[in-house]
Amino acid sequence: MRQMTLIGFLQAQNCTNFAASWRHPDSRTDFLSVDYYQHIARVLEAGKFDLAFFDDRLAMPDILGGDHGHTVEHGIRCVKMDPVTILTAMGMATERLGLGSTYSTTYYEPFHVARVFATLDLMTGGRAAWNVVTSLNSSEARNMGRTEVVEHDLRYDQADEFMEIVHGHWDTWEDDAIVLDKQRSVFANREKVHRLDYEGRFYSSRGPFTVPRSPQGYPVVIQAGQSGRGRRFAARWGELMFVMYPNMQVGARATAELKQEAERIGRDPATMKVATLIHPVVAATQAEAEDKCAAIAALPTEDDSLSLLSEALNFDFGSKGMDEPFTDAELASISGLQAIRDRVLQDSGKTNPTVRDFIHYSGRGQLHDPWVGGPKEVADRMEQWFEEGGCDGFVVAATYVPGAYEDFVKFVVPELQRRGLFRKEYEGRTLRDHLGLKRAERGDWRRGG
Amino acid sequence: MRQMTLIGFLQAQNCTNFAASWRHPDSRTDFLSVDYYQHIARVLEAGKFDLAFFDDRLAMPDILGGDHGHTVEHGIRCVKMDPVTILTAMGMATERLGLGSTYSTTYYEPFHVARVFATLDLMTGGRAAWNVVTSLNSSEARNMGRTEVVEHDLRYDQADEFMEIVHGHWDTWEDDAIVLDKQRSVFANREKVHRLDYEGRFYSSRGPFTVPRSPQGYPVVIQAGQSGRGRRFAARWGELMFVMYPNMQVGARATAELKQEAERIGRDPATMKVATLIHPVVAATQAEAEDKCAAIAALPTEDDSLSLLSEALNFDFGSKGMDEPFTDAELASISGLQAIRDRVLQDSGKTNPTVRDFIHYSGRGQLHDPWVGGPKEVADRMEQWFEEGGCDGFVVAATYVPGAYEDFVKFVVPELQRRGLFRKEYEGRTLRDHLGLKRAERGDWRRGG
Repeated sequence: MRQMTLIGFLQAQNCTNFAASWRHPDSRTDFLSVDYYQHIARVLEAGKFDLAFFDDRLAMPDILGGDHGHTVEHGIRCVKMDPVTILTAMGMATERLGLGSTYSTTYYEPFHVARVFATLDLMTGGRAAWNVVTSLNSSEARNMGRTEVVEHDLRYDQADEFMEIVHGHWDTWEDDAIVLDKQRSVFANREKVHRLDYEGRFYSSRGPFTVPRSPQGYPVVIQAGQSGRGRRFAARWGELMFVMYPNMQVGARATAELKQEAERIGRDPATMKVATLIHPVVAATQAEAEDKCAAIAALPTEDDSLSLLSEALNFDFGSKGMDEPFTDAELASISGLQAIRDRVLQDSGKTNPTVRDFIHYSGRGQLHDPWVGGPKEVADRMEQWFEEGGCDGFVVAATYVPGAYEDFVKFVVPELQRRGLFRKEYEGRTLRDHLGLKRAERGDWRRGG
Repeated sequence: MRQMTLIGFLQAQNCTNFAASWRHPDSRTDFLSVDYYQHIARVLEAGKFDLAFFDDRLAMPDILGGDHGHTVEHGIRCVKMDPVTILTAMGMATERLGLGSTYSTTYYEPFHVARVFATLDLMTGGRAAWNVVTSLNSSEARNMGRTEVVEHDLRYDQADEFMEIVHGHWDTWEDDAIVLDKQRSVFANREKVHRLDYEGRFYSSRGPFTVPRSPQGYPVVIQAGQSGRGRRFAARWGELMFVMYPNMQVGARATAELKQEAERIGRDPATMKVATLIHPVVAATQAEAEDKCAAIAALPTEDDSLSLLSEALNFDFGSKGMDEPFTDAELASISGLQAIRDRVLQDSGKTNPTVRDFIHYSGRGQLHDPWVGGPKEVADRMEQWFEEGGCDGFVVAATYVPGAYEDFVKFVVPELQRRGLFRKEYEGRTLRDHLGLKRAERGDWRRGG
């Protein structure tokens, strides 16, 4: 029976992706300690999750009003630690849980990124995943020594080269290259370790790569591109797709389109898993869950939304009145996550939405479309999405930590298991095993190329 | 009583810095597993070492003959994994051991390096150290998208800016910035989180930094610069100096000069610890140690030396006959670790040494000047260096792994402890505690600036 994919959506910061989470009375405040992250990892592994993965941002929000003061004062994602370091620590507290992290293609060399994730895959026995992003906001650019962000489509052209180098390096060592004959002093077969000699328009890297092949062949590649050029990139490279769908009908259509796009360029659609973001608020009963939800929904402020929208769209949302419509020029100037702008346009039905429309339809910073219920209600909804083509699984976001994960594992996971939709035990050791993806063979990434 | 500093010198690769180590009959071969590194960490912690630290190289040796084939075949440092990932894993298997890694200033943005080490310091409760290097060889440059290495002195000018940014970011959050008042929604005091706004000749970074102040204030900065410009850099930034001295007289003079240089620019020399590299071969008795040593000394090949010299000096040592003298132009063209060249010139007494002289006087690849003996003999020698000003401590390199560390901890450490030269138990929790360095206060790095 087809099995659901479950992913924990983590942040190496003072709050979850729901910025108000830190204000919850039961949220842990020791987010600077390793115990905080290892605890979450153990909860997710007890719930047999496929993986935990971290988002990332190389700056604190400071586009709203051109200053970081509000961010720091109200704790709106003002902390952001190095996610791979924390992920590694989580890996040492678990044995099976997959471990994914975002890493930007914009500010690092591909050799470095290839080496970090290959090393993580080795040190965790084949549990690593890389969420590929192109960086989009100008606060990040200024921290990283640049003055401007690269234009959207060009970023993806660069990222294609980046991916070719990273995968090329991961192909350097053949599986049986290492010999380890001490007496004859033959460490490896020199014919089975290859240079890359990549010379592209944006990047070059010679090789050979210094990390032998890792347990999964390649770490799993996570991708979230949903806009036009981004979706083509995702269809080429993404193995696990992180998506946000406003409803199941949209989701089923978009998932089908993604898989068709992959098929069109020669990939087997079964090599791509699509997981959609949900914010479950669960308890023993529907009534208890609704009480919980009311308390959570009261936590955000308007500043949370304005700050996060400003970041995501690289536009100062404080520069306009709440009910002032965006001009065509302003809408066109948005250089960040264009998928958010497009969704607001579509869902509001307006060609010139206001700031308030952006808050309402994007849901940024607010508790947007939570899935509220007891085990049955939430499992019903997940089962329907899963069975009717909306997705292959779910990226579970936490309204506060660690309680939201503890609740999900306690109430929802057993119900999914009872229905045969989700594993009771891990069957394999690697993340690819959990996801039902084959071990990567050399050259697999050239599929359809 | 003044206490000795002990440091384990580690490599995230198939061998130790002694390339032949993997050929030793008792060397572990599972260097791609986390257990290998966690085992070493536990051995060093049982021996109350101050810290373990990793060197790094962003390429495999391939300057000799312009090809990597010999490197792969003979296992001459052909593997090099991401050291911080492995270090983090080692930190999760220990509670007190300091954890240092090399990270180049040449191929990363300072914001990134600051974030990685601040995160590591947080996740390990104040045990992080960063070994600052400027990258020197052209194989690395070609892997990292560059065609040439930067000229030696200019590299250090760049590195000075890099350090100013890194330390500036580490100063972003005042110690008491975080408030965490959930009810009033005051996460932190906005007046106590600062932007950097650094605009240099080579680098810029705006901030604010996204990681609050870490347990040590700053991670400990390790530095190894010994040539003229490098020594000025080291005197400014280095807290723990990694040095290689050919004998105690040279060591005592150089250590005094380093500390004078630090004092000259306004630092208290007590804020700098100098540790020199040793290759101990120890056993229960002198005779047993000599037998061990004979077996180890037989492991290297001439290729080991030629390959490693070529890397360190960025010159193809295969392009000359073994007894052919270097011309003045060739000696001047050397762009790598100039300290090695200078030592060969000095110790050989020749103005135009041959390839064979380079092998002999540099000791690269060979078992060079091992300290061989039972507990008494090795402890005597360490005590003499320590008491007569040669150094504050030792960087202990392993002739093979993990046996060389196990022997050192079993035979030498107890003898040092008996003499009152080395701690019997860790007294503090942070690496600065172990080293006898104060917690860093904001602005401490500006000392003498």
